[in-house]
Amino acid sequence: MEFKELKEFFETHDNYLILTHRNPDGDTMGSGFALWNILRGMGKNANVLNHEPFPARYDFLYEGYSESDFEPQTIVAVDVASQNMLGAGLQQYADKVEVCIDHHISNSMYARNTIVDGDASSATLVLYRFIKEQGIPMTDIIAKCIYTGLATDTGCFKFSNTTPEAHIAAAELMAYDIDFVDVNRRMFDIKSMGRMTVESAVTRDMEYYFGGKCTMICVTRALIRETGVDIAEFDGLASIPLQVQGAVIGVTLREHRDKEGFKLSVRTTEEADASAFCRQFGGGGHVRAAGCEIDGTLEEVKAKVLKAVGEMLGE
Amino acid sequence: MEFKELKEFFETHDNYLILTHRNPDGDTMGSGFALWNILRGMGKNANVLNHEPFPARYDFLYEGYSESDFEPQTIVAVDVASQNMLGAGLQQYADKVEVCIDHHISNSMYARNTIVDGDASSATLVLYRFIKEQGIPMTDIIAKCIYTGLATDTGCFKFSNTTPEAHIAAAELMAYDIDFVDVNRRMFDIKSMGRMTVESAVTRDMEYYFGGKCTMICVTRALIRETGVDIAEFDGLASIPLQVQGAVIGVTLREHRDKEGFKLSVRTTEEADASAFCRQFGGGGHVRAAGCEIDGTLEEVKAKVLKAVGEMLGE
Repeated sequence: MEFKELKEFFETHDNYLILTHRNPDGDTMGSGFALWNILRGMGKNANVLNHEPFPARYDFLYEGYSESDFEPQTIVAVDVASQNMLGAGLQQYADKVEVCIDHHISNSMYARNTIVDGDASSATLVLYRFIKEQGIPMTDIIAKCIYTGLATDTGCFKFSNTTPEAHIAAAELMAYDIDFVDVNRRMFDIKSMGRMTVESAVTRDMEYYFGGKCTMICVTRALIRETGVDIAEFDGLASIPLQVQGAVIGVTLREHRDKEGFKLSVRTTEEADASAFCRQFGGGGHVRAAGCEIDGTLEEVKAKVLKAVGEMLGE
Repeated sequence: MEFKELKEFFETHDNYLILTHRNPDGDTMGSGFALWNILRGMGKNANVLNHEPFPARYDFLYEGYSESDFEPQTIVAVDVASQNMLGAGLQQYADKVEVCIDHHISNSMYARNTIVDGDASSATLVLYRFIKEQGIPMTDIIAKCIYTGLATDTGCFKFSNTTPEAHIAAAELMAYDIDFVDVNRRMFDIKSMGRMTVESAVTRDMEYYFGGKCTMICVTRALIRETGVDIAEFDGLASIPLQVQGAVIGVTLREHRDKEGFKLSVRTTEEADASAFCRQFGGGGHVRAAGCEIDGTLEEVKAKVLKAVGEMLGE
């Protein structure tokens, strides 16, 4: 589907449900509410849906939003690469998606019509291209939604998916009242008390091997109990070990909830291959970020990991 | 001084010392080595000088650099707002600076000729304007130096000094081989083991008052001893307390080294005035970031601070 057809589609349909992905982030939320504002501007009925209630940290995107009462007719998904990503709460719509707007090259093409720009840094950037090409009126809130998705998915212009286009879009969006300082503070700086506790605990217990070339954190069931923090706050810790100066391979061990053994998340600098490392244990992934599972007690798993790290580092 | 005159100056002088500021950051280092490469490209002799040896974390900027042997004739300072910022090691040159290239509106105009663009996000962006306007040849290493200063001073495009021009410059610089992912990892993600330990310790001991609206960390002499980490690693902690969700005022207490009492660094969201808060104690600063000193034991100082916080929050 081309942008011209998308505009015609929007003009000739009504009563939209806009689906966003589970574990919502700034890009799916930003895309969802940007599209909601676009459709409302075209005089259409629309609601934004997520598998769970919208997280409070994105409240600046849905200020002024309220769910309307209408008979849904048109299902659109934004930043949702596969039906599975809709989560259980939205599975009822999984086979009825008319249009999917996305930037994941891995999109499974489950929708009747798909616009997937794999070279776009964020799904909101696809919407931005649409807005510019088709002359859709831009507003402050749409600009803020688009910026939020762009900043989120590029790690504030830090990750390798940051393109010159991403920077130029940011420059143009700054002409609107987007308060990007506040957006970035909310997206990147603010943490819950629980998260602060978790990060403090895993950093305190960080282990250093091979002169600091290998760093390791161990998220055991005992640690989770000890901190008393909600288990969700223990997600997304895998980047922490590699933040230590001199580390080449950063390993995060996470104990299984209900059986003996650990899930490993491995991160490496350009000096090591995370994917090759994890393949030894039946896992895989990308060259800088990969994962696998290893059975055994903490001591057994650590011994296996350190033996393999030693071989990899030639030590 | 205009850029045209600056180019003429460079063409008609030789044997340069390029001075950078003490506690060197990515902007002064980036400016220094960008200018060194520009001058070398013009066939000139030049050395870059700092108060201390160049920190290893900036080694990607001075790859290929070596100090040359010549009789210094022309002193240029980059990103140095005042003579004091040169540090003790470079005071011998403080009154001999022919040209200063800077972006601090507070520049004390100590140099014979000053180019200070207060609207530039970084000193490297002033050099970038110069390069573009005067047709200086751009190279990969110059682009990398300029990007590094720009990313450093804007907190990777997060701070309020980020302008549309900063984003457009970043987009243009990405046409060169700058490996911005590696630059940003070095500038923003990597921490020393000691720093990890310090951040873990102050986060572990963080105190929450008024339902979490006030957060506080206390850097006591005892804590510094306990961690066994170099004292320099305890600088720049003041932004941590305000990272907690819901915090309105984040206070960092730092015990004096040689007398009773504490230095306070106060950070606030838009809901509180850090400067007004600190004025009560004879200090001052900006509306979101201010400081003061309070005499007394830890308990006495905390009591004074919390009383004032309670009044400010109306609780």
